[in-house]
Amino acid sequence: MVGGGPGAGIAETHRTAMRLDDRYVMMAGVFSRDPEKSLTAARKLRIPEGRVYRDYAAMAEAESGRKDNRIDAVVIVTQTASHYEIARKFLKAGINVICDKPLCLKLVEAKELAALVEKNGLIFCLTHNYSGYAMVRQAARMVRNGELGRVKVVQAEHASGWASKLVEREAIPQAVWRTDPEVLGDASVLYDLGTHAHQLSRFVTGLEVTEVAAEMNQIVEGRAIKDNANLLLRFSNGARGTLWASMAAIGNEHGLRIRVYGDRGSLAWHHEDPHYLRYCPIDGAPQILAQGADWLSSDAKRWTRVGLGHPEGFFEAFANLYTEVADALLAKADGKAYAKTDLSFPDATDGARGVAFVESAMRSYEKGGGWTKVELV
Amino acid sequence: MVGGGPGAGIAETHRTAMRLDDRYVMMAGVFSRDPEKSLTAARKLRIPEGRVYRDYAAMAEAESGRKDNRIDAVVIVTQTASHYEIARKFLKAGINVICDKPLCLKLVEAKELAALVEKNGLIFCLTHNYSGYAMVRQAARMVRNGELGRVKVVQAEHASGWASKLVEREAIPQAVWRTDPEVLGDASVLYDLGTHAHQLSRFVTGLEVTEVAAEMNQIVEGRAIKDNANLLLRFSNGARGTLWASMAAIGNEHGLRIRVYGDRGSLAWHHEDPHYLRYCPIDGAPQILAQGADWLSSDAKRWTRVGLGHPEGFFEAFANLYTEVADALLAKADGKAYAKTDLSFPDATDGARGVAFVESAMRSYEKGGGWTKVELV
Amino acid sequence: MVGGGPGAGIAETHRTAMRLDDRYVMMAGVFSRDPEKSLTAARKLRIPEGRVYRDYAAMAEAESGRKDNRIDAVVIVTQTASHYEIARKFLKAGINVICDKPLCLKLVEAKELAALVEKNGLIFCLTHNYSGYAMVRQAARMVRNGELGRVKVVQAEHASGWASKLVEREAIPQAVWRTDPEVLGDASVLYDLGTHAHQLSRFVTGLEVTEVAAEMNQIVEGRAIKDNANLLLRFSNGARGTLWASMAAIGNEHGLRIRVYGDRGSLAWHHEDPHYLRYCPIDGAPQILAQGADWLSSDAKRWTRVGLGHPEGFFEAFANLYTEVADALLAKADGKAYAKTDLSFPDATDGARGVAFVESAMRSYEKGGGWTKVELV
Amino acid sequence: MVGGGPGAGIAETHRTAMRLDDRYVMMAGVFSRDPEKSLTAARKLRIPEGRVYRDYAAMAEAESGRKDNRIDAVVIVTQTASHYEIARKFLKAGINVICDKPLCLKLVEAKELAALVEKNGLIFCLTHNYSGYAMVRQAARMVRNGELGRVKVVQAEHASGWASKLVEREAIPQAVWRTDPEVLGDASVLYDLGTHAHQLSRFVTGLEVTEVAAEMNQIVEGRAIKDNANLLLRFSNGARGTLWASMAAIGNEHGLRIRVYGDRGSLAWHHEDPHYLRYCPIDGAPQILAQGADWLSSDAKRWTRVGLGHPEGFFEAFANLYTEVADALLAKADGKAYAKTDLSFPDATDGARGVAFVESAMRSYEKGGGWTKVELV
Repeated sequence: MVGGGPGAGIAETHRTAMRLDDRYVMMAGVFSRDPEKSLTAARKLRIPEGRVYRDYAAMAEAESGRKDNRIDAVVIVTQTASHYEIARKFLKAGINVICDKPLCLKLVEAKELAALVEKNGLIFCLTHNYSGYAMVRQAARMVRNGELGRVKVVQAEHASGWASKLVEREAIPQAVWRTDPEVLGDASVLYDLGTHAHQLSRFVTGLEVTEVAAEMNQIVEGRAIKDNANLLLRFSNGARGTLWASMAAIGNEHGLRIRVYGDRGSLAWHHEDPHYLRYCPIDGAPQILAQGADWLSSDAKRWTRVGLGHPEGFFEAFANLYTEVADALLAKADGKAYAKTDLSFPDATDGARGVAFVESAMRSYEKGGGWTKVELV
Repeated sequence: MVGGGPGAGIAETHRTAMRLDDRYVMMAGVFSRDPEKSLTAARKLRIPEGRVYRDYAAMAEAESGRKDNRIDAVVIVTQTASHYEIARKFLKAGINVICDKPLCLKLVEAKELAALVEKNGLIFCLTHNYSGYAMVRQAARMVRNGELGRVKVVQAEHASGWASKLVEREAIPQAVWRTDPEVLGDASVLYDLGTHAHQLSRFVTGLEVTEVAAEMNQIVEGRAIKDNANLLLRFSNGARGTLWASMAAIGNEHGLRIRVYGDRGSLAWHHEDPHYLRYCPIDGAPQILAQGADWLSSDAKRWTRVGLGHPEGFFEAFANLYTEVADALLAKADGKAYAKTDLSFPDATDGARGVAFVESAMRSYEKGGGWTKVELV
Repeated sequence: MVGGGPGAGIAETHRTAMRLDDRYVMMAGVFSRDPEKSLTAARKLRIPEGRVYRDYAAMAEAESGRKDNRIDAVVIVTQTASHYEIARKFLKAGINVICDKPLCLKLVEAKELAALVEKNGLIFCLTHNYSGYAMVRQAARMVRNGELGRVKVVQAEHASGWASKLVEREAIPQAVWRTDPEVLGDASVLYDLGTHAHQLSRFVTGLEVTEVAAEMNQIVEGRAIKDNANLLLRFSNGARGTLWASMAAIGNEHGLRIRVYGDRGSLAWHHEDPHYLRYCPIDGAPQILAQGADWLSSDAKRWTRVGLGHPEGFFEAFANLYTEVADALLAKADGKAYAKTDLSFPDATDGARGVAFVESAMRSYEKGGGWTKVELV
Repeated sequence: MVGGGPGAGIAETHRTAMRLDDRYVMMAGVFSRDPEKSLTAARKLRIPEGRVYRDYAAMAEAESGRKDNRIDAVVIVTQTASHYEIARKFLKAGINVICDKPLCLKLVEAKELAALVEKNGLIFCLTHNYSGYAMVRQAARMVRNGELGRVKVVQAEHASGWASKLVEREAIPQAVWRTDPEVLGDASVLYDLGTHAHQLSRFVTGLEVTEVAAEMNQIVEGRAIKDNANLLLRFSNGARGTLWASMAAIGNEHGLRIRVYGDRGSLAWHHEDPHYLRYCPIDGAPQILAQGADWLSSDAKRWTRVGLGHPEGFFEAFANLYTEVADALLAKADGKAYAKTDLSFPDATDGARGVAFVESAMRSYEKGGGWTKVELV
């Protein structure tokens, strides 16, 4: 693991996800730029001192050179701005990568990473964790099975209320860097939340967003950046839709949701109740599909641990990605090709498409609105 | 009443709304262009033969000339295309008007009607019935009271599933004219449904939509017009939002809903459960406000007939407008000025703004998207 | 109408229900024991002075003797305690009766009324208004169609929060008599609310409650009676269940709901959202059936005025009973037999069963619990 | 761990719960009566061969005799019938116990276990996992804080649909033993599900069930036992309520829920959406309290890993108990007294009260209903 020292919230989520299905052992890492802090964190995680490195470059070099007991993959949980250089280093060293999202902040860098993955035949997982939910898999399968007919309208939202106040003035690190005009700037809400809604739209529908028209504004006065974005979307099959990303939508909790309307049916999923999927066929009553039910697809069943009425949540969905990657890593270790399916975990290409999407949305907004193409990396 | 003969669904809704609070007696009318059908309808409604007219012009003339027992107002429930000329005739004859929505199909005509109302000092009610719901009044009052702080984001939808199939091929009159390219054309979904969402946004927030960027597409293949529209909105106070109008959103029932986010709180209302309002203050848990509760505003209480847990619905909301108009008509008959308040029933100006909104949205769409100003009539 | 002078809330509901579908004209009445008040009320209702009577007996006599323009039925909306004598008088005079619930306060009287109805071939409607909801009819039809298999468990509640405070001390008439130990006593909560849940159970399942075991307690301290009752039920087909009646369940709004479980499926209906029915077949996902949907039974469609997504509520359900009775009255006036079907409006026998149910529950409670038979009148 | 070999579903849940917060290392065990199977399971769990025992007695003896690296506690996940003897053995050997629920099948045995825990000063956790949910803790704290006033009515349900079909004929082991008249008999539904609802009622309200009146019936014909129970409850403070336990309530998913009504407010919690709590104060609107919100009690916050809108579910609640026990074990290892608080994890006394409850309910049912006292162990 690179990153994830004291106070790094998301790293603990990654570690919990790793533990949940008992498929990972953490063996090496750089947990902080401060060697003392790094060592302290490592001890707590029962990692031998000899495999705590002074920086990511040293780790990449040393681990790639090991004869045995080499790490199968590195987990990158640093701030977004450093993803590119760290991921590149490990990919060049021939080490598989699991990287927190978003992939990076420039499309040109994203493309380079995707190309490296391809060239070196490596496994790269971008932990767009919402793609791991059983009922998101169910939704994706139903769309691909044609149960909605042709997809015509997609309404996606990641409108959270987490920053409804000026939390950046409370010295909460995540709030400070996410609202810093020098770090992510106005694009922050799109990188942080918009990419989740974008990925969810793509994962569920199997379509690409090809054009975007964007508008932004500010909810919390005194904030240094825009904190709200409304987008119109055009999809690769001609479908249309909207995407709303916000960090200050009071009362919305986490606020990730998607509704997909085809010409034969519709689906709705809401992260606040992730074990349900509302499905409505054109010729019948709306149905409440619940995780664990007998009649779900194998894609949903594969990621259900207990059964009907035993809610699984955020950690389980995160763990689903990790477990899926573990299967891929083992297959690769056995010399088998890792077969990416239509519903596999998100990878570097998915990440690059997210970056392309944000860049295009920002261009649209900055030029005063209007349709802007999104490059399909 | 003008219109409302056999098969005219909305006319029966108007008549039910009139009866509900026992504030109206129907005394005259033209119920069909066919004199026989008109007379038959009149008999069923117990209207004396002498006050069944051959056409609206004859009715306007005769009724305006009566010395006693003259109608207090005419109700216009014909197809949209004829609203303008009928309303103009009655307004010129000095007769108050209650008119089904939308007001008409051209902004220039809408302005003329609004000016006539003003000049002749008449009462004009456009039956945007959703403004009549007790909990919509509650929402509007809470926004005006500042309970949401400054309004920042408005998400409005009237995405119905009523025309998810090619219902126009089943010879249902409402489906035929609403999908006829020669009648309303691609603007149909905006005139029919979009104006409801537009009016609801204005009524709840007290803001005007000043600019719009529009995109349309088609859900049901084989249909002669577009049946789906996604719009970005800019509001008069700088708020932003979206409006989704659709006639083919499978599984959405009627699909009218609004969410308003301020910098101090948020509100959500959904027509499918109209007796509830979800309110979330910035510093507390979301609350479920229910019609009939003690702590609601007098604006909500005025329009609540029974009380908590006794749901009122579509007809009651419609009746609320009629009863409010009855009060205004009586006041006027008593020589008192009719005092329009900040939450009064929608009038000709509201109607004109709806027409301006649709015209601007269509211009935006037809030019390939991009922000387009909406004239504030 | 007998009763329904100033301040009589339920009478206005009856009158609204009569008006809604325009099937009734009110022609005569006694609106108060105070002749002045009665006359004032009658004038407001546009009833000719000659048909305002000094008391119910005079009304029954005079109306039964009229040669023409005689009333088709009398509506009794007095307090429960006087229902018996008033209803008896009209029934003996050969006049059809529409009576507010509960029927009366003694089983022996209830039986006499039911027998009189039968003997005189009259129409008697007890306005158990919840049986009038379209989706309650849908539920009843689905059970009778076998869509739930054999009914095994019934969970019924009418646990309202209306008297969560000592409202009887606020001089609200309905609160005063309903908590008066001399009027209804501890049985009040069962007569007022329990009979609704009992009738709903019978109407939906087509089963009878044959045994009851009851427990009561008091929620609001200082109240003169018990205000909460929990009952175990045994049904005629061997099904089991519970019934909860309360007048002080904080936060429950009106609190009428029913859940029916068979061995092939289940149904749930909640008065707070009366246009929905949750249906779950044994082999599929739960479905949300909405009033107005294409796939509902004709029993539901008959009582739907507008359509999907246009909520109908309390008044419409009440009006449904009135309109159904109007059909029966017209049939009878035409000399046709009034054919009671399996889903017709509640009548005197239904009322008598409600009284028998309350009496048995009170006997069980007063003897310290344990199963007590309910007489099937 | 004792038990938890191949196919033992609940054991995997225990192990996942142990791993989630990284507070446990599994070091010894007997995973099956078949030594081969036990060894295979142990290897998969990376447990050294020397600490895989031939039976629980050998394990208790050997582990209690170890000088160092001794197990801190044993986890018992065998079938209910063997809990008593296994737990007794370890308790007598001075080893702390974590035991799956229900505690055992006879009150006399339950008392003995509770007494042994007390006498030997040991930690005993009965994994009534629903007591581990953050929002259940919140509910319990609010009741104890008096936010509901005096508790008056408790409505508890654990009405699952898991055995709505004759699943026992499909050779599913859990279904076979749970419907075997020789194992748990008619009491099965009460032991398996009823004790959860009973414990939840006690944990949330802080009250004891002192009397019960029970009725049972059968939903699935052909089953060898009763599968449905409806109970009336009397609580130690005079409150009343009901408890519904079922294994065949079609459409109910897991079906665990509780509603508590006091004279100042009410609370409702439903396991299907465990991150929400509906709270209604007597003088305000119902509120939706969500896990992770700022205004929750420290009892809820202590068991929240991520925050608002990031649902935690079944495993997290289970893990909460394990982590709480880990704290107690560490305190004890440090020679500190383990301080049981009013909201600590369920223990042997809680388990004994569950057994007493089931025995009393069965006595009530078998004697034909009527109130039966529940011994407060």
